[in-house]
Amino acid sequence: MQVEIITIGDEILIGQIVDTNSAFIGQLLNMNGISIKQITTISDRKEDIINALNEAKSRVDVVLITGGLGPTKDDITKKTLAEYFNCKMRFDEQAYQDVVNLFAQYEKEVTPINRLQAEVPEICEVIRNHNGTAPGMWFNVEGKIFVSMPGVPYEMKAMMKEQIVPKLKASFKLPFIYHKTVLTQGLGESFLSELISDWEDSLKKVNIKLAYLPSPGIVRLRLSTVGENESLLKQNVENKINELQELISEYIYGYEIYGEERESLEHIVGKLLSQKNKTLSTAESCTGGYISHLITKVAGSSKYYMGSVISYSYEIKEHELNVPKEILEKEGAVSKKVVEQMAKAIKEKYKTDFSISASGIAGPSGGTDEKPVGTVWIAVATPTKIISEKFLFGNNRERNIQKTANAALNMLRKELELI
Amino acid sequence: MQVEIITIGDEILIGQIVDTNSAFIGQLLNMNGISIKQITTISDRKEDIINALNEAKSRVDVVLITGGLGPTKDDITKKTLAEYFNCKMRFDEQAYQDVVNLFAQYEKEVTPINRLQAEVPEICEVIRNHNGTAPGMWFNVEGKIFVSMPGVPYEMKAMMKEQIVPKLKASFKLPFIYHKTVLTQGLGESFLSELISDWEDSLKKVNIKLAYLPSPGIVRLRLSTVGENESLLKQNVENKINELQELISEYIYGYEIYGEERESLEHIVGKLLSQKNKTLSTAESCTGGYISHLITKVAGSSKYYMGSVISYSYEIKEHELNVPKEILEKEGAVSKKVVEQMAKAIKEKYKTDFSISASGIAGPSGGTDEKPVGTVWIAVATPTKIISEKFLFGNNRERNIQKTANAALNMLRKELELI
Repeated sequence: MQVEIITIGDEILIGQIVDTNSAFIGQLLNMNGISIKQITTISDRKEDIINALNEAKSRVDVVLITGGLGPTKDDITKKTLAEYFNCKMRFDEQAYQDVVNLFAQYEKEVTPINRLQAEVPEICEVIRNHNGTAPGMWFNVEGKIFVSMPGVPYEMKAMMKEQIVPKLKASFKLPFIYHKTVLTQGLGESFLSELISDWEDSLKKVNIKLAYLPSPGIVRLRLSTVGENESLLKQNVENKINELQELISEYIYGYEIYGEERESLEHIVGKLLSQKNKTLSTAESCTGGYISHLITKVAGSSKYYMGSVISYSYEIKEHELNVPKEILEKEGAVSKKVVEQMAKAIKEKYKTDFSISASGIAGPSGGTDEKPVGTVWIAVATPTKIISEKFLFGNNRERNIQKTANAALNMLRKELELI
Repeated sequence: MQVEIITIGDEILIGQIVDTNSAFIGQLLNMNGISIKQITTISDRKEDIINALNEAKSRVDVVLITGGLGPTKDDITKKTLAEYFNCKMRFDEQAYQDVVNLFAQYEKEVTPINRLQAEVPEICEVIRNHNGTAPGMWFNVEGKIFVSMPGVPYEMKAMMKEQIVPKLKASFKLPFIYHKTVLTQGLGESFLSELISDWEDSLKKVNIKLAYLPSPGIVRLRLSTVGENESLLKQNVENKINELQELISEYIYGYEIYGEERESLEHIVGKLLSQKNKTLSTAESCTGGYISHLITKVAGSSKYYMGSVISYSYEIKEHELNVPKEILEKEGAVSKKVVEQMAKAIKEKYKTDFSISASGIAGPSGGTDEKPVGTVWIAVATPTKIISEKFLFGNNRERNIQKTANAALNMLRKELELI
């Protein structure tokens, strides 16, 4: 059984928003053993929608459509589906009650335009929307399933998880898909590839596919396999990962299993701090709160994370983190001595077991011959010592902030694993 | 002239990464008067690639392909293109020199696997890659253009901007496309739609299309028009925006023009602070550094932003921001008194003209009957006063953090516009 996702919306074609919906759907279906053949993004034009529906129908069994269901005049998906399936509209009382109840929560009355949202093509089954005003629609026509959902991410996500995936699982016999991703840091894609070339060739025999997923500072290696025997598939993947560990253990910082929690560095660090009952603080300069944001994105982080001083100016480094003025003037804010003092000071001030500090030149301006844009110093203070390291990233401000945060979290992770 | 983007990669289909490349390409082409007909995402399978190339060729004049050019074995785009165009491979000396030079920068020698990257289908013109090892390829076959680029975002971006867009502009006569987006905050999509319904109907007469783009706390209204006469198109859009201002002025916080700087709230706030020569600090709790991160994402923010105290624990609120223990115990950390004291303290401590503070229950746990998850207090301190406001957002941690940051930046923006 294969699925195509059709995303409808000019705003995606012109790049005004990024299509995160398809990524969510892909991830969710994949976890459930359903594979995606294609993702198609088109405009809110009737002919394009109809053409995409026809093409998708010829390729796959299930077509999942997002977008174009808003109450406003630029949204034409529902009308177009009625025309495509050659059927009239009906008023759905249940869908209307859902709208009424939603408005009641905000103490508002249903507007005429929202009342219209309860009208659906008569041959569809309504997928209830508990988070918004546009109902989803499930069509089963000539053995092919078409599902139309709103484009608002949290409305679509709830529908997919609570209603559509269970209905798909009930409708098809599905194979088992297993993915495990090995997370590596510190070695580029092509060097990694050379190191593991023979191992990579050996994957075919056990029907495992490998993908390289590079991102700032990090390469993730995804092993995927599909079949009927769940325990055999898992065993094959685990065996191959054991072999891989012998080749590149020093670069591996963790694993991600699909269907389980996503193992970002901030999750791994959070888990280690919780397990070892340790606390953390940060003192950020060039990252401007991004390290702290990553740490606090993790639910439950208030148990181990105390807080941060973001010292964007010299004065705050001096007054709040006791960095001596002479050092700032002599060595500059981007220096070993400064980050080590920042890490030491915040750890003492916020009374934590560990701390992270970072100071660098994020860019685009501020670089010198000696310290070009992308120069970053990071320090980690542990209960017994302070370590620091200099990095040279690139000249893109956003990537430099991300790379700094990843490198800092990885330095902390290594120290946490030692204790 | 119309374009289709084909994105190749299993990692996108299974949702392991989000396709930001297409959004970038869409935005860039759109600014240059080139419209995108469709975005298609497929797997690294030969048959799927060939099928997508055939379908795209039947729809559009130009096919832009990203992904599948890595040095590793899972990448098959180049081989497949040679087969599709029925041609042999040739070794491109220029592409090889680019690889050699790139490796020299990192003081590394070219590996055999990277040498292979300089082999390209013989009928293509090489698009040089100054940021990575895979050259781009430009094919002009039977009046249709196909361009293959690496999937690594910054490699693709540089190629698009520096080489591919100029070549496309030289190859086609392009119409003028004009977009302007009105940014609104504080009113939901359906209420907004009712308020501006007549105005919206009037857009057709001047050939302007309207799109509603909702995101946490914000609705952006995009007006688009296309034609030959640039000044007439702009005048039509400006006239309609003047009419709109009379209808909903209180909800409008800014504008975005395509091709110019993106007007996020943090950019608008940054510009106002710069223009008025004022400084800012923040004291964050539930947002955990996200407000600070948004502010410091803006290049040049070190001129007006001094820093932050992120007080994730009670102790830090008490010791670093002088929030009296009695108030924390009596009113709780999520309260008017606490955020007002946080804003006051950070403004004094960091000696800034303005400050922002936020404290809330981001979730998923920590809510009570009286203060459910999503309850947030925000304060803004100005040179003369402190204002604060209570919000009730939803139960999604990530959205709550984003909504809080947007609401806080908008409160600050309103105060900055008054002085």
